[in-house]
Amino acid sequence: MLTKSHIKLITSLHQKKFRQQEQLFVVEGIKGVKEFLNSEFKLHLLFSTDAIFDAETILVSEKELQKISGLKSPNTAVAIFNIPTILPNAQEKKNSESNGLIVALDDVRDPGNLGTIIRLCDWFGIKNLVCSNATVDCYNSKVVQATMGSLARVDVQYTDLETYIKDYNHDVFGTFMDGHEIYSQNLPDCGMIVMGNEANGISESIEKLITKKLSVPKFGDLKATESLNVATATAIILSEFKRS
Amino acid sequence: MLTKSHIKLITSLHQKKFRQQEQLFVVEGIKGVKEFLNSEFKLHLLFSTDAIFDAETILVSEKELQKISGLKSPNTAVAIFNIPTILPNAQEKKNSESNGLIVALDDVRDPGNLGTIIRLCDWFGIKNLVCSNATVDCYNSKVVQATMGSLARVDVQYTDLETYIKDYNHDVFGTFMDGHEIYSQNLPDCGMIVMGNEANGISESIEKLITKKLSVPKFGDLKATESLNVATATAIILSEFKRS
Repeated sequence: MLTKSHIKLITSLHQKKFRQQEQLFVVEGIKGVKEFLNSEFKLHLLFSTDAIFDAETILVSEKELQKISGLKSPNTAVAIFNIPTILPNAQEKKNSESNGLIVALDDVRDPGNLGTIIRLCDWFGIKNLVCSNATVDCYNSKVVQATMGSLARVDVQYTDLETYIKDYNHDVFGTFMDGHEIYSQNLPDCGMIVMGNEANGISESIEKLITKKLSVPKFGDLKATESLNVATATAIILSEFKRS
Repeated sequence: MLTKSHIKLITSLHQKKFRQQEQLFVVEGIKGVKEFLNSEFKLHLLFSTDAIFDAETILVSEKELQKISGLKSPNTAVAIFNIPTILPNAQEKKNSESNGLIVALDDVRDPGNLGTIIRLCDWFGIKNLVCSNATVDCYNSKVVQATMGSLARVDVQYTDLETYIKDYNHDVFGTFMDGHEIYSQNLPDCGMIVMGNEANGISESIEKLITKKLSVPKFGDLKATESLNVATATAIILSEFKRS
């Protein structure tokens, strides 16, 4: 049965403060909930209008689901999962951090952009996403929604990005207007790709730590848009790194 | 001076019905307004807290701007432009339609996705975007906002997509799970790239008209996300067509 304290808890989890305090976050919709149930994330509570999940379910009416959903058109289920204290696949993470590609975000603020970038990391087999502390919280419900379940498979960590990069031993890539044209570069299997803030790009302090500047060439006339959205730029860059 | 009828007009333009009736649409923010002022679009009315535009401006207070803005944090200006009856560069459009790349959208419904795709077309020098009639209206304020001014440089037309493709003389590309891996294909300078609906992909009736099926390979483990967002997929595909 859905209780008042359930409603209060779910509502509170829309705020980062309470997500951190409770170490819980909300996942909505059949697909997203199933992805997290199949992952190493631990279920806290599951509310659904149907008993279709292989997990203990608190059955609710459509009207009750509406009350606890953050969506205009709620889709069957709202679940609460535990925020992992130790990242689910910590060993695998360490291995891939030293061997593979890492994406690092320098203050990406838009939840939709972060969610899309997590989904892209998942698609391109990138296990580790390192975020500056000012980057939007990946357990924000809009981010979780935009990842379409991919958050269950990509390790996201928040840290002081400058310190993190200083301790990193491979090439650090970033895109700049005056960088080397990405299409003609030999891109390695191992390295860090830094993506910048929506309005300001990569910050000055981080720019100093970039070892290889790249650019995505613009086609068409000179008046054309002077920047790509950070998520679409990430798509193009990851595709280039992986295609070769 | 901002009048009640101004407020009524701007508010009404949030609905497609009134945009079509009045043949007007709203642009917000300094950057977007400037891009449209520098384009072939015709200004109808311009409201701003500052006299910084090279156009007749109705000066308003911050409070008044808040009243007419659709944004949480309004940015200096709200303008109304005419929806062009004849597309701005009709001749150029005809030439590029027969010679260059065209992007066609089969029922893309999310305003953010359409806006991002228009911005991508602008970046990659694609002049023509053909939308099925069920695709979201490009003069929707969320679309205009997401294009960051690029709508001023890309011709968007709405039509019966099936008929349009049947009349088209070059290759028609679309991405499918079982398509040819895009990274190993020789992609032409001329052709149509069809992108599908967010939930359902390319519809059956349009799929029959696709002459070359492509796929964007997925990396990493098998459990990975089974689809890319339509805007990020468009980014990768346009990058592949243009990079060669």
